Amino acid sequence: MTVSRLRVGVIGYGYWGPNLVRNFQELEDAEVVSVCDIRRERREHFEKQYPGLTISEDWQELVRSPAVDAVVVATPVSTHYQIAREALQQGKDVFVEKPLALGADKAGALIELSQRRQRTLMVGHTFLYHGAVRKIRELMDQGELGEPLYLDSTRANLGILQDDINVIWDLAPHDLSIMDFLLRRPPLSVSATGASHTGRGLEDVAFITLHFPDHVIAHVNVNWLSPVKIRRLLVGGTDKMVVFDDNEPSEKVKVYDRGVACSDSPDKRHNELIQYRAGDIFVPQLDLTEALLNEARDFVASIREGRQPLANAESGLRIVKLLELACLSLSRDGAPVEVN
Amino acid sequence: MTVSRLRVGVIGYGYWGPNLVRNFQELEDAEVVSVCDIRRERREHFEKQYPGLTISEDWQELVRSPAVDAVVVATPVSTHYQIAREALQQGKDVFVEKPLALGADKAGALIELSQRRQRTLMVGHTFLYHGAVRKIRELMDQGELGEPLYLDSTRANLGILQDDINVIWDLAPHDLSIMDFLLRRPPLSVSATGASHTGRGLEDVAFITLHFPDHVIAHVNVNWLSPVKIRRLLVGGTDKMVVFDDNEPSEKVKVYDRGVACSDSPDKRHNELIQYRAGDIFVPQLDLTEALLNEARDFVASIREGRQPLANAESGLRIVKLLELACLSLSRDGAPVEVN
Amino acid sequence: MTVSRLRVGVIGYGYWGPNLVRNFQELEDAEVVSVCDIRRERREHFEKQYPGLTISEDWQELVRSPAVDAVVVATPVSTHYQIAREALQQGKDVFVEKPLALGADKAGALIELSQRRQRTLMVGHTFLYHGAVRKIRELMDQGELGEPLYLDSTRANLGILQDDINVIWDLAPHDLSIMDFLLRRPPLSVSATGASHTGRGLEDVAFITLHFPDHVIAHVNVNWLSPVKIRRLLVGGTDKMVVFDDNEPSEKVKVYDRGVACSDSPDKRHNELIQYRAGDIFVPQLDLTEALLNEARDFVASIREGRQPLANAESGLRIVKLLELACLSLSRDGAPVEVN
Amino acid sequence: MTVSRLRVGVIGYGYWGPNLVRNFQELEDAEVVSVCDIRRERREHFEKQYPGLTISEDWQELVRSPAVDAVVVATPVSTHYQIAREALQQGKDVFVEKPLALGADKAGALIELSQRRQRTLMVGHTFLYHGAVRKIRELMDQGELGEPLYLDSTRANLGILQDDINVIWDLAPHDLSIMDFLLRRPPLSVSATGASHTGRGLEDVAFITLHFPDHVIAHVNVNWLSPVKIRRLLVGGTDKMVVFDDNEPSEKVKVYDRGVACSDSPDKRHNELIQYRAGDIFVPQLDLTEALLNEARDFVASIREGRQPLANAESGLRIVKLLELACLSLSRDGAPVEVN
Repeated sequence: MTVSRLRVGVIGYGYWGPNLVRNFQELEDAEVVSVCDIRRERREHFEKQYPGLTISEDWQELVRSPAVDAVVVATPVSTHYQIAREALQQGKDVFVEKPLALGADKAGALIELSQRRQRTLMVGHTFLYHGAVRKIRELMDQGELGEPLYLDSTRANLGILQDDINVIWDLAPHDLSIMDFLLRRPPLSVSATGASHTGRGLEDVAFITLHFPDHVIAHVNVNWLSPVKIRRLLVGGTDKMVVFDDNEPSEKVKVYDRGVACSDSPDKRHNELIQYRAGDIFVPQLDLTEALLNEARDFVASIREGRQPLANAESGLRIVKLLELACLSLSRDGAPVEVN
Repeated sequence: MTVSRLRVGVIGYGYWGPNLVRNFQELEDAEVVSVCDIRRERREHFEKQYPGLTISEDWQELVRSPAVDAVVVATPVSTHYQIAREALQQGKDVFVEKPLALGADKAGALIELSQRRQRTLMVGHTFLYHGAVRKIRELMDQGELGEPLYLDSTRANLGILQDDINVIWDLAPHDLSIMDFLLRRPPLSVSATGASHTGRGLEDVAFITLHFPDHVIAHVNVNWLSPVKIRRLLVGGTDKMVVFDDNEPSEKVKVYDRGVACSDSPDKRHNELIQYRAGDIFVPQLDLTEALLNEARDFVASIREGRQPLANAESGLRIVKLLELACLSLSRDGAPVEVN
Repeated sequence: MTVSRLRVGVIGYGYWGPNLVRNFQELEDAEVVSVCDIRRERREHFEKQYPGLTISEDWQELVRSPAVDAVVVATPVSTHYQIAREALQQGKDVFVEKPLALGADKAGALIELSQRRQRTLMVGHTFLYHGAVRKIRELMDQGELGEPLYLDSTRANLGILQDDINVIWDLAPHDLSIMDFLLRRPPLSVSATGASHTGRGLEDVAFITLHFPDHVIAHVNVNWLSPVKIRRLLVGGTDKMVVFDDNEPSEKVKVYDRGVACSDSPDKRHNELIQYRAGDIFVPQLDLTEALLNEARDFVASIREGRQPLANAESGLRIVKLLELACLSLSRDGAPVEVN
Repeated sequence: MTVSRLRVGVIGYGYWGPNLVRNFQELEDAEVVSVCDIRRERREHFEKQYPGLTISEDWQELVRSPAVDAVVVATPVSTHYQIAREALQQGKDVFVEKPLALGADKAGALIELSQRRQRTLMVGHTFLYHGAVRKIRELMDQGELGEPLYLDSTRANLGILQDDINVIWDLAPHDLSIMDFLLRRPPLSVSATGASHTGRGLEDVAFITLHFPDHVIAHVNVNWLSPVKIRRLLVGGTDKMVVFDDNEPSEKVKVYDRGVACSDSPDKRHNELIQYRAGDIFVPQLDLTEALLNEARDFVASIREGRQPLANAESGLRIVKLLELACLSLSRDGAPVEVN
């Protein structure tokens, strides 16, 4: 006996929606049965691409349709809460693009609703499903890097300036969710600086610092106004260090057997106290499966198996909280804000 | 009639001293007549390289020698003040490696002394003499970039941890002096975050944000614990944007005809308000003269011509002030500090 | 009145077929109505992706179907001739992946047949539709490069070793068709060297040299056994030089204002005779439309307009002839073979 | 008792001479005692750099000086033979820049003379002393790469067009000496193509193919007219493959655990016959000593120890023979020429 396919409805067919449709369509045990978008030109584009599928204008109709088991939300951030809430209320399992909602209170309310309705609620922290990030976490879990010292992430591009959110809400969910995944612990404090150049009051360049226990520091540089695309994460450990450069077509993760060690002996001179190490570099072969396919598969499997997905709503809430605190610090010109 | 050569004495023959000696030696109208270093192995190395030159152990002897016209100081930062002061008092013209001194009070005292003694005092802000930085300033002066929006500089390496200063005092003078040179104005406020991992209390990773008038923001990321060398400056303007990547062997400066323009009309929709531009890239041929040779030449010429060098002591003082403010903010966990 | 859509049938849904289907599907005035592949797993994959479309096993049925106007052939090279011939005989317009056929006699026969049946016959020289190659040809047509001196193309990868052809027949059609397009003239002679390492007698590494009039030389390096992907073309001209690096994510074409000029005066010394020039670099913004979409569009438009497509069958024949001559030279250990 | 220093005289202070002087000067047990150059401006430059050393105009005086033990020849290639011969006749040990001489007969005569006079004769195959090449040979000696399949070397630049030799004689000694060092065996045949664009009859672009036993093939692409600097060697083995990119500032050698394996079973289908492997990449830490310093040290040590240096004159002769054969093939439009 074969399991019937999960029937997926996708709301929003703009920049990211087509990738979601294509990947859910790749899955054996799921099928996209319905798509909707309020823009006529996007619907026409969809119809040309997928002559056999239907697309509508009305998302409320989609979330109410009994022919839909699960709803994927790929609309502007400010609409996430309303659509996800309605879908959960209609008894659907729900996948929401990142960030989960525009505020921790709303994210929390969605979680509460999903628990009450016993539905899966997942957030699109795609990088948790990326072969590079999986490999780095594997190395950290194996103790290869030693103790973490710092994380430094830059995400810059001549990006599409969002209408409803600043660059932190738009880009930093990627970096913060990766850091949350790798460090497995919350920061102690957050500070952020930035600037807005478009007269709209929405920052287009911003810098976030997070302090974690044990002197671990993390930094996020997000920029909508960069002429070049930069997607680079440095992870410094006491034993090894990692660079993840997502611009590299093939050698995305490099593990450097490099570091600095300090002797504690107070009676030694500087040169004797500090030892440098410059060793080999290792470029591990990564799982090259498209992250989004892994993500779609985990959504479907988590529903089938009645378990939490990796990118569960709780991680979505943690990231939304950090985004809020970063913006609070931003409004105070970088003064640090404590977490909890 | 030929002008006699300026007789230069170099104090400190460690990492940077050999470069200074080699470049002053290249000049037609100068010659290195004396070098000193307290380390025996460095002196032996020098003697093998330059059989015809003398090297001594005692810097005080050097600064007092009537056979020396000008003194170049390339010793640890904490000794800059004492050596430069003594050299000025002995009537020498003085070139001090960056930063000028370990404190604005000391830097100010050196300036005051140099004025009283009518001697040239110059600071080794080498990048002001780098073909790449000169080209960027030229483009900015010509209005090619439009109004500046942001500067973002990263200087990371598995650097030599200094004994007497943290990573900000060690590396940020480069970035701050470039920014001072390009923007020609002081920031309004400074904030900085960072962490120390060696148990010595000296930060090895740090991030500085500077706010300038008109929403111009600058960011400096300095890191002694990076497994890879990063030397990159982004300059975003309203018309064009520049990337200076000093790791690139030949195409160091790229000028991007890219940007985002906002219409002010409030009745337009988002898509109509914001216009993106992705145009050609221009990679200007740079003056490839070694920056240090230009710098040495400017020192000698400024003495001969009785004028201020480009990297004058006033710029040295401005940078030292910013370094102090950054460290003050660092001690306050990133809380912003006003300039003046 | 709207024109009815061209009804396209695609034969072969392996590596390249999906790209062809997707791009023909993107066109306003065409639609993929039928696909076939002999492999069951490929058919199942197609059915999951395109629930609304049909796929069959039998290509002969497809080429005879009255519901199909035009046939796209994306099967192994050794089958091109038979399938294209049958499709032309059935009155279809035909697009054949490169190389057009496995032999100049067969390519010629297809052209003859297409002319007799007054059908469009096109070959998949995709790079003729690539923004980078278009830009280089535009620069050459405008005289920007001066007189061409040399072309040097490297196409290396850990490629899929083909069953029925060597690396020259597999990869060199790209390079040779680009060179044919840029130089607009045939070479005088061809020589080639190579080696086979798999015991099958099919070369997996090969090097081709083509001599053109006026000392213009072209070189093609094709390699199935390279650990890294290299896709680079150098075009040297008397005035400027171009590098097209298809691995670069965004800056694919760079135009260098560099060169060497020789004075003819016999009484000058070497240094005076030869002048080097190292100037600016220009990175033109390219048309980023997927080459395959342009190609599909040209196929459809050439049918509608009753004109030859850019990648017409004559160019397909010219390239097949060069491939044959290269393999002839290969069999003679590199001895040159004259063209005509 | 300390050994007295080897007294070195350097003939030719143009492009490469300063590097030789600097490195010999670095050695503990050698010292540059005399330099000569026929160009006045080069002599003046030297005198400014090394106030304590003497430089003359007359090389014959230098080779006859009893104050000189060993002679380093860094003059134009066409003068190597005469100068080296005279120096050997005067009883000096001799280091000649590559290529050893402009013809195998002359190279052989120098070897014969050096043996008769029992003097060391060494050739400047610098890459044999480069950490990258040493590492690759080490990997090959350890069997890490399996059996060699191919070597592919590209050496391109907007080079200085030589007066007396073509691009093969100028650049290919590097590639051929590396291949000779790595493969430890002579090729069976050589073929070469190329073109001259300056009206002087000296090729400025050339391509050499060498066939070795067991289907091993090597290719050398040398180009004086390239707008970009390319210095890359690929080494393909049955087990692993290596890329040596000398343009990379730090990660010059990468070892790829990649390959293609063929099963011999004739009854398997293509897909089953050929197996691809894409594994990890390893970037070994290299010895970063300047190659020229290692080379200078080996020259001095080989004299002291009465042994052959690594870059001995026999290897110089082998390379000169290959250069001659390549030019013979070049004159025959690429027709292959057998070795021996």
